[in-house]
Amino acid sequence: MVNLSSQPLPNKAGARATRVKNVTLHRLTTVLDLRGHLIAGEFGRDIPFTPQRYFLVFNVPNSESRGEHAHLQCKQFLVALKGSINVIADDGASREEFVLNEPNIGLYLPEMTWAVQYRYVDDAVLLVFASDYYDAGDYIRDYSEFLTLIKQNQPSK
Amino acid sequence: MVNLSSQPLPNKAGARATRVKNVTLHRLTTVLDLRGHLIAGEFGRDIPFTPQRYFLVFNVPNSESRGEHAHLQCKQFLVALKGSINVIADDGASREEFVLNEPNIGLYLPEMTWAVQYRYVDDAVLLVFASDYYDAGDYIRDYSEFLTLIKQNQPSK
Repeated sequence: MVNLSSQPLPNKAGARATRVKNVTLHRLTTVLDLRGHLIAGEFGRDIPFTPQRYFLVFNVPNSESRGEHAHLQCKQFLVALKGSINVIADDGASREEFVLNEPNIGLYLPEMTWAVQYRYVDDAVLLVFASDYYDAGDYIRDYSEFLTLIKQNQPSK
Repeated sequence: MVNLSSQPLPNKAGARATRVKNVTLHRLTTVLDLRGHLIAGEFGRDIPFTPQRYFLVFNVPNSESRGEHAHLQCKQFLVALKGSINVIADDGASREEFVLNEPNIGLYLPEMTWAVQYRYVDDAVLLVFASDYYDAGDYIRDYSEFLTLIKQNQPSK
């Protein structure tokens, strides 16, 4: 597994590819000023979609894993506003682990990406933007079912 | 001025009108669970628009005021993720002060609303959703100009 410490993001705003299909790691625009600090992201530009929903996850026990599912359609963008959160992303063929530990780092997870979030430390707060409204039917909660769907969706050679 | 302590929001998700034209105060959906807490908002449903941009403001000295402008077109939705922030909203005829001090309270500021944010305490972190991309030409930074524009836009009787 590869994490941020071995493949650092550049300090300026931008994104880099990862080992996982269409998953990208983003550095958001940051402005440091004596009057206050600012971090900004534009949807459809810095972040690959326009959200229909956001949610915050916090007060998660260190021992808990969350996520452990994929979405059929919904795209997500994850930011650790506070503390540190580990995220594993998996496209069915490649898997990479990320440490989100700065509020100007975001991880883009397209649809059909298996993801697990765990090790919420230092009172971690996770901000998630989602491309779609909540829909229980959009979740794939079984990893073997996820792999089957990935195979079905691959173009035949 | 009226603040949250005299007109509390109900504990369930929803919104209430304020004394300021089209400004609404929102309670967002909150789920408390042993596995972690969740706060969620859906754009176009709980929040009156779909954002093209978000930004975080933090490390603001307690003595600083921010905002002190209106937008010609851009709508905003403000949430204090951490700490407490006072916001004054003003439609040119009525003015109200709000204390944002819970991460599940949001304040909707439509276009043509003069707003000031101040008294960032307890390491306050402000999350703002904006309906439009950043556009320097959308700002009205002079209060008397704001009042003139408000009067021009009022339907003649």
